Amino acid sequence: MIIVLRSGATDAEVEAVCRRIEAMGYRAHTIRGEVRTVIGAVGDDRGKERLRSLESIEYVEAVTPILQPFKLASREVKREATTVPVKGITIGGERLVVMAGPCSVESREQVLEVAMRVKAAGATVLRGGAFKPRTSPYAFQGLEEEGLKYLDEARRETGLPIVTEVMEPDKVDVVAEHADVLQIGARNVQNFSLLRRVAETRKPVLLKRGMSTTIQEWLLSAEYVLAGGNPHVILCERGIRTFEPTTRFTLDLNAIPVVKKLSHLPIVVDPSHGTGHWEYVEAMALAAIAAGADGLIIEVHPKPEDALSDGPQSLKPDRFAKVMERIARVAEAVGRRL
Amino acid sequence: MIIVLRSGATDAEVEAVCRRIEAMGYRAHTIRGEVRTVIGAVGDDRGKERLRSLESIEYVEAVTPILQPFKLASREVKREATTVPVKGITIGGERLVVMAGPCSVESREQVLEVAMRVKAAGATVLRGGAFKPRTSPYAFQGLEEEGLKYLDEARRETGLPIVTEVMEPDKVDVVAEHADVLQIGARNVQNFSLLRRVAETRKPVLLKRGMSTTIQEWLLSAEYVLAGGNPHVILCERGIRTFEPTTRFTLDLNAIPVVKKLSHLPIVVDPSHGTGHWEYVEAMALAAIAAGADGLIIEVHPKPEDALSDGPQSLKPDRFAKVMERIARVAEAVGRRL
Amino acid sequence: MIIVLRSGATDAEVEAVCRRIEAMGYRAHTIRGEVRTVIGAVGDDRGKERLRSLESIEYVEAVTPILQPFKLASREVKREATTVPVKGITIGGERLVVMAGPCSVESREQVLEVAMRVKAAGATVLRGGAFKPRTSPYAFQGLEEEGLKYLDEARRETGLPIVTEVMEPDKVDVVAEHADVLQIGARNVQNFSLLRRVAETRKPVLLKRGMSTTIQEWLLSAEYVLAGGNPHVILCERGIRTFEPTTRFTLDLNAIPVVKKLSHLPIVVDPSHGTGHWEYVEAMALAAIAAGADGLIIEVHPKPEDALSDGPQSLKPDRFAKVMERIARVAEAVGRRL
Amino acid sequence: MIIVLRSGATDAEVEAVCRRIEAMGYRAHTIRGEVRTVIGAVGDDRGKERLRSLESIEYVEAVTPILQPFKLASREVKREATTVPVKGITIGGERLVVMAGPCSVESREQVLEVAMRVKAAGATVLRGGAFKPRTSPYAFQGLEEEGLKYLDEARRETGLPIVTEVMEPDKVDVVAEHADVLQIGARNVQNFSLLRRVAETRKPVLLKRGMSTTIQEWLLSAEYVLAGGNPHVILCERGIRTFEPTTRFTLDLNAIPVVKKLSHLPIVVDPSHGTGHWEYVEAMALAAIAAGADGLIIEVHPKPEDALSDGPQSLKPDRFAKVMERIARVAEAVGRRL
Repeated sequence: MIIVLRSGATDAEVEAVCRRIEAMGYRAHTIRGEVRTVIGAVGDDRGKERLRSLESIEYVEAVTPILQPFKLASREVKREATTVPVKGITIGGERLVVMAGPCSVESREQVLEVAMRVKAAGATVLRGGAFKPRTSPYAFQGLEEEGLKYLDEARRETGLPIVTEVMEPDKVDVVAEHADVLQIGARNVQNFSLLRRVAETRKPVLLKRGMSTTIQEWLLSAEYVLAGGNPHVILCERGIRTFEPTTRFTLDLNAIPVVKKLSHLPIVVDPSHGTGHWEYVEAMALAAIAAGADGLIIEVHPKPEDALSDGPQSLKPDRFAKVMERIARVAEAVGRRL
Repeated sequence: MIIVLRSGATDAEVEAVCRRIEAMGYRAHTIRGEVRTVIGAVGDDRGKERLRSLESIEYVEAVTPILQPFKLASREVKREATTVPVKGITIGGERLVVMAGPCSVESREQVLEVAMRVKAAGATVLRGGAFKPRTSPYAFQGLEEEGLKYLDEARRETGLPIVTEVMEPDKVDVVAEHADVLQIGARNVQNFSLLRRVAETRKPVLLKRGMSTTIQEWLLSAEYVLAGGNPHVILCERGIRTFEPTTRFTLDLNAIPVVKKLSHLPIVVDPSHGTGHWEYVEAMALAAIAAGADGLIIEVHPKPEDALSDGPQSLKPDRFAKVMERIARVAEAVGRRL
Repeated sequence: MIIVLRSGATDAEVEAVCRRIEAMGYRAHTIRGEVRTVIGAVGDDRGKERLRSLESIEYVEAVTPILQPFKLASREVKREATTVPVKGITIGGERLVVMAGPCSVESREQVLEVAMRVKAAGATVLRGGAFKPRTSPYAFQGLEEEGLKYLDEARRETGLPIVTEVMEPDKVDVVAEHADVLQIGARNVQNFSLLRRVAETRKPVLLKRGMSTTIQEWLLSAEYVLAGGNPHVILCERGIRTFEPTTRFTLDLNAIPVVKKLSHLPIVVDPSHGTGHWEYVEAMALAAIAAGADGLIIEVHPKPEDALSDGPQSLKPDRFAKVMERIARVAEAVGRRL
Repeated sequence: MIIVLRSGATDAEVEAVCRRIEAMGYRAHTIRGEVRTVIGAVGDDRGKERLRSLESIEYVEAVTPILQPFKLASREVKREATTVPVKGITIGGERLVVMAGPCSVESREQVLEVAMRVKAAGATVLRGGAFKPRTSPYAFQGLEEEGLKYLDEARRETGLPIVTEVMEPDKVDVVAEHADVLQIGARNVQNFSLLRRVAETRKPVLLKRGMSTTIQEWLLSAEYVLAGGNPHVILCERGIRTFEPTTRFTLDLNAIPVVKKLSHLPIVVDPSHGTGHWEYVEAMALAAIAAGADGLIIEVHPKPEDALSDGPQSLKPDRFAKVMERIARVAEAVGRRL
């Protein structure tokens, strides 16, 4: 931490801050500039967050952290890339993962049809929501446990592992019984009780970035899972909230190289939620792969115009198959493959 | 809903969209413009959200809602302002409510001291966090149930009702046993499972706006509580995330007149989290009252420089007392009182 | 400047950075932490911006400034508040300034009528746009020089000084001939050529904040005018761009206490552009005064529904008069007056 | 335009709005819903912006445009893609354009060295700033006309056409004398006087998106140039301002498919300014090409650590050459070539 004093701070004030820093167990290292004095606090990082309270002292201007606050998620602690094994496939390796399927599980027929179509097109994981977080209490809330059963059946039929969302700590056990990957949705990225509970399952976790979560906060949410003993975290960029209205969110592909620099965790991209319009999904899927993403999660629906949720952003199976061909070409251009 | 067709849509395409709208149970009303055709879908609003899926049709340009999607929270459904009774005080009436206290309950002594000081200064509700949602797993996570007991004791000593946060559905019962108002934090504003559970308690709910929640989404979260049978919702503006770094968040006071126009629910403002710096709390507290807020929630700590959380934004009790005097004057200028 | 090295930087690398810092004329002061080394660069601040380029060195993690980059605009350089004299009135003193008038000058009759009405209600400066920056080339672009003449006439009739916008360096002379205060619009806040030209006139400058300008950048734009020899700068907060769609912009009242802390310059607030809706103007005007603003700029139009620009955010004269009464009461509550 | 009335609007009020719409020269088409009445205004679009003022009527809830407000920039008006010829190369065709060079022209030697290096690596246009818009008045402001002469010399030596920024109307002629493409910087995207002047030159214009400009506003700025008689507009996405601090801006690649849908104009991407860090440039350059961009503009500097501006985001020539090889592979994967 760097503690910046107000200009004109007296020697006694500098001294007082140093004493406080030392009382908290750090060494204080003072640099006197021409206008201001700054003090570096040196020592074990774990508890340094507490030093921020020094900012409430009248002659302290600011307290600025130097280190990233996450540890287990950090590339500095673990240099080699993490891979997450999911039923025989590996996420984060040379091969890309493509998770595909409907936004919501709507019926047995729907999910079975989509599962077969996306498998045929080359997808390796089936997505589908049984518990749905909906902005409005009057919108379709998902088939819940019935939906999980249809997903089970789709896995039996196709062999595709399942990723599905869990929304509350109490449902973690039941969802974990059916799912191969537990999805934490964007709105729950800082639901810390839920993060602690999914950590306990030791199952792979797909952790979506919140719509206004900084990358640092997102990695701290990953840290909750890692610190809870579960190393199997897959990050998922799905768009952030900005002022631009032509897309539902602003898919932030910059997050890919940033995450790759700061962390060893694999990252996949959701161009369906990120853009909100099926017409933009292909371009952003290709871009994500070119930028170095480890995979994609894409919404596919046999009849988007009848979908109970997120129809506008769903691809039809035929179009999805064509997009997969293009993904394969871009993957090869950057040294990856489907 | 207004369905806008692509320019050049054929008569058959217009006809096809009309048939779909009618199949969903609405009347279709076509307006042919010079460039485009738009179709209004008229009928019961509850399920109109489904019409959005029409946007996935290639010759549909956009589907635009006309009505606000919330009902029970709407000023159109209930014209007179809602007041929420909390142990003898009334939130949303002529008298303003001021909730004050520490960010976290840190010890019995701390919370008792603050409680007495803020009561002496004129606060009418005591705030204090026992369960703390912290961005980092390594930060202080709250005293949990022990903290609730200290709050109980502070209430017995001072008579001040208690507002404290609940973070997960499983803890709603234990928190509701001790709290007079259940706080839903900004990070849980779209934790729909939690919203449904606090609705069941019928206790007053302080619903903080999320850091990137639109006012419409926030009122839809209120709608979850209202639709669950609990009419006692108090909204709390606490800052949104923007590009500006000099404040921790951007406290959005515009939300006050907007909420007053759209909804009948009372709204209070949190200038402590909203700005993140004690020096800006007074100005924004006064501004909130002038803009028509029904009250404030302010962090007060006897020694902010030793606080376990949010020290930089906490007022010392003496300063809080002075701020209260100024609040009283501004309140009077706008026809309210403490 | 604080230069943070990558973890694992070697002694030779630390040494190399120090030598570069010294070659640029600064003293290098090294702090070795447990994980990282940071180096403070101490010396004259003016040219420190160049140190940022060190960030391009592979083993440098980040270069972080400690000081605010503006000088003449800074409260540290000039502690007492600046007041700007405008034809017998003083902006930035105990008395508040209220600038009012139409968005655009549309006709002689319109501007004369509004001028008399706002003067009667207590406004002390007349606003009105003759040169209009319009997002669309097909929108009304202003009456230009003809509009300036009508403003002249309105000043002669009412005695109110005039604030009007200047959009390009070449028009500064002609606008300065007619205007008492030169307005720099939000879209030109970083039009540095224009800032340099208005500095030369030595006339008061109303410098609007850009819709995505940080407060630091805004004060640096003010610094262009001050460094050009013109001390008469009035800042104007007018709303920033965020994700919230119910208001046209998000009026950022937090800017008031932040500017008052960082700078000695007066600040006024524009609730008309800031909210975009006449219904929200009163609440935000009162809030701005309570937060410590030195004045307001408000759009008033005799027939908003016929306005050639910004009708939705304009007050009718009668409503404006009522708002002025309420402003007077809040002003008094915070120790100011109209 | 769709005019939405408040719920409970009377027949007389509906009638009054219809009469106003008709008085403005449009046909009014009324749809009575269960809760609200909406009125469509049908007719020539050019002046429809004026209908927005109806929102100031007390019983009008909102006025919502249906059509995009730009015409000449619209894909609906011109279906085939526009190509812009620049000295023998074509921007917007199958071949990608790569513009490369230093942020600022700093010396004759620097610009000649970079020009030869980027040409050798396959760049087809040389970039370099002679007039520099700098946030701080104390930062290096560019070599101005001297810089233009060095660019001239670099063109003679290498044959590369030149793109360089023009910041004010008065300098358009002198810059146009030397430049092959006139760059309008992000801060000037709504400097309408400047847009009108560059339109008159009939030279190709590289129009950067502003840091908080919506895509619609950006295309309206393009419309100023097109409506001024200059069809040679190249759009350039360079990052928008969001809350995320790990990148200098958030490069918004979503803009590529959105622009391709809404407009026929070519679009290039600036990953250097967009991310602000050289380490992220390659990933985002590849992603831009995969997403369908027509080219790139990349900062290259022989010694970024000594650069007078934007050192942290500049590539060294060797790295640039390697990035070009990867760009070629991704280009081929999406059916384009360098």
